[in-house]
Amino acid sequence: MTIDLVRLRAETPGTAHRIHLDNAGAGLMPRPVLQAMTGYLQREADIGGYEAANEAAPQLDGVYDSLARLIGAARDEIALTENATVAWQMAFYAQVFRPGDRILTARAEYAANYVAFLQVARRTGAVVEVIPDDADGVLDPEALERMIDDRVRLIAITWVPTNGGLVNPAAAVGRIARAHAIPYLLDACQAVGQMPVDVAALGCDMLSATGRKFLRGPRGTGFLYVRRELLHRLEPPMIDHFAAPWVAADRYELRPDARRFETWENNYAARLGLGVAVDYALDIGLEAIEARCRSLAERLRQGLGAVAGVTLLDLGPRPAAIVSFSVGGVAAEKIKGSLAAAGINVSTSKPSSTLLDAMARHLPTLVRASPHCYNSEEEIEAVVDAVRTIAG
Amino acid sequence: MTIDLVRLRAETPGTAHRIHLDNAGAGLMPRPVLQAMTGYLQREADIGGYEAANEAAPQLDGVYDSLARLIGAARDEIALTENATVAWQMAFYAQVFRPGDRILTARAEYAANYVAFLQVARRTGAVVEVIPDDADGVLDPEALERMIDDRVRLIAITWVPTNGGLVNPAAAVGRIARAHAIPYLLDACQAVGQMPVDVAALGCDMLSATGRKFLRGPRGTGFLYVRRELLHRLEPPMIDHFAAPWVAADRYELRPDARRFETWENNYAARLGLGVAVDYALDIGLEAIEARCRSLAERLRQGLGAVAGVTLLDLGPRPAAIVSFSVGGVAAEKIKGSLAAAGINVSTSKPSSTLLDAMARHLPTLVRASPHCYNSEEEIEAVVDAVRTIAG
Repeated sequence: MTIDLVRLRAETPGTAHRIHLDNAGAGLMPRPVLQAMTGYLQREADIGGYEAANEAAPQLDGVYDSLARLIGAARDEIALTENATVAWQMAFYAQVFRPGDRILTARAEYAANYVAFLQVARRTGAVVEVIPDDADGVLDPEALERMIDDRVRLIAITWVPTNGGLVNPAAAVGRIARAHAIPYLLDACQAVGQMPVDVAALGCDMLSATGRKFLRGPRGTGFLYVRRELLHRLEPPMIDHFAAPWVAADRYELRPDARRFETWENNYAARLGLGVAVDYALDIGLEAIEARCRSLAERLRQGLGAVAGVTLLDLGPRPAAIVSFSVGGVAAEKIKGSLAAAGINVSTSKPSSTLLDAMARHLPTLVRASPHCYNSEEEIEAVVDAVRTIAG
Repeated sequence: MTIDLVRLRAETPGTAHRIHLDNAGAGLMPRPVLQAMTGYLQREADIGGYEAANEAAPQLDGVYDSLARLIGAARDEIALTENATVAWQMAFYAQVFRPGDRILTARAEYAANYVAFLQVARRTGAVVEVIPDDADGVLDPEALERMIDDRVRLIAITWVPTNGGLVNPAAAVGRIARAHAIPYLLDACQAVGQMPVDVAALGCDMLSATGRKFLRGPRGTGFLYVRRELLHRLEPPMIDHFAAPWVAADRYELRPDARRFETWENNYAARLGLGVAVDYALDIGLEAIEARCRSLAERLRQGLGAVAGVTLLDLGPRPAAIVSFSVGGVAAEKIKGSLAAAGINVSTSKPSSTLLDAMARHLPTLVRASPHCYNSEEEIEAVVDAVRTIAG
């Protein structure tokens, strides 16, 4: 499969307006995603909210099939959530911890997850421990193996952290988790949509992700995968009558599928948009998307690396399509502002988003540029030129 | 204030297509709400998701002011959530219960809330008790007063239940709760948007509501009010780094405002739509909306009451704009289908949605017709005629 760049750009309205290198923030939606949402909202206004959902029931139901296909799961192992954080929370807070139980995580773990670890540690007496990195700054599976004992109750890591191109060895972690029968929760927010994802190959028990980033879906969408064998043992931290129908005066019954982690009411327009985004990515092919994302990111890294004053901050031998850097003497927010004035979208990542990694590496707020397959080589050059001007 | 029906209908695209009497399900969105959302989504596609949110920051921020004005709260007492259930859950699951603690609720309590009571009762040893009704089937404040002792840890009721016009005496309950310093959580899902709401007059500590019903906002929107004095004592059941910034390696700090019950990522299009819906309702005036809603509902009740075979099922001396009924020998789903075929939208309410009330009153699945101020008298007559045909 090869990328038809002309077609991809023609189908992405935003490429006419901006050089968008913030796909790790929110990817530019392709036109079919936008149209699915605006068309559906119009339909809600025309015939009513419940009536529109009824009319679109087959498409709404198909979103589960699309996501299952995207990550190699079964549809009953998928829950749709408001965002990736809620997906992750529903899985994490469903775990039961006793005093002294160990939660193992990675150094570049996302703040959203880490504060939840801290809250639960305080509530239950569990302890949070960080798996050491190897010499490249990548999570070290051998170090993880050495940490395992019968007090490890959960391994929860981020596959591609928010603050750079680092790709943690998610499948190697999965093999260790499975060998020791330790529940394994993988935050795949920055991975899904930019590379093939196969939950069987990853060996994860639970996986959370968002629709808005490399999947190019709507904001306010996320999903959770829970392996069927684990599913029936997990009681959601909070329930409503959709998750757990009220079957007798003093009794509810949890749904048998992963939708026990959902609530009844949802934003159906956003769900439809998510499904269209997934189908759109599958049509292009995740292998092709990954190859082009990495190629553009590498081109950007090489270009930026040749600019005096620029420090590249990505870790690992084969980083993903998140390019993180700083420019000596220029604050990240200023760089972002100058690029925005030139029509270039990037984002910044503060130390507090990945506090342990930022402290260990003495990171400043950094600039995060994340290309996607619809970006052009010319856009990459334009960004390098713009950074050169800022740095010079 | 009087209602300008011609203008209201002109501003409500759905009135050209359907007779919509399902405002307790999802109200028809006025055109400004639809346009705010579709325009915003287009903007996201054109310039990027983060960039669009930045551009619309003042409007997005203003949603808190609009909601505060709607319910007589301060803006720092408001959290925006994916739906009313999440709003309610964040408040309810933040409560701490010990074995023997009592949760007092109403007979017509919504299933979503009741299964959560049951889950927490099982986890903590708390007990759930139902406040008796008076002779009219309305929650009896005197009975509540007699139940109070120092083991009552929460009063949680629904103001206007899902399955009919019943209006529980929310303010009378609030006076008792306040007098005994018992936390009071009010589910205002079917009240907000159809009548004035003033949290000070209600005396509630926490109030949850949805955007999609009588407020005529988008699906997938809700909000939570938490009284400032209580706020700082409540730790959310789940947190992310927006609710609780990660301030040191082993420490987070909860936000001081009610947004500690939110997560970082959201559907901004839906939030904008919610704000516009609130402003739209405030512009009409909640007193005027309530007067017209009640008048149309009463007209519908009188019309249906004169149809042979129809049983009206609403409780209380002054029911709200939810008209519940059954037709002897015709299943509710069949009535709904026949009305739909005639271009009339209503919904049904199953016994499992309000199980205790349904068991006590031997309720079948019932038909729920809920008019709003934009409905016309002619539409009400048309619905009565259609039901007469079905019943006859």
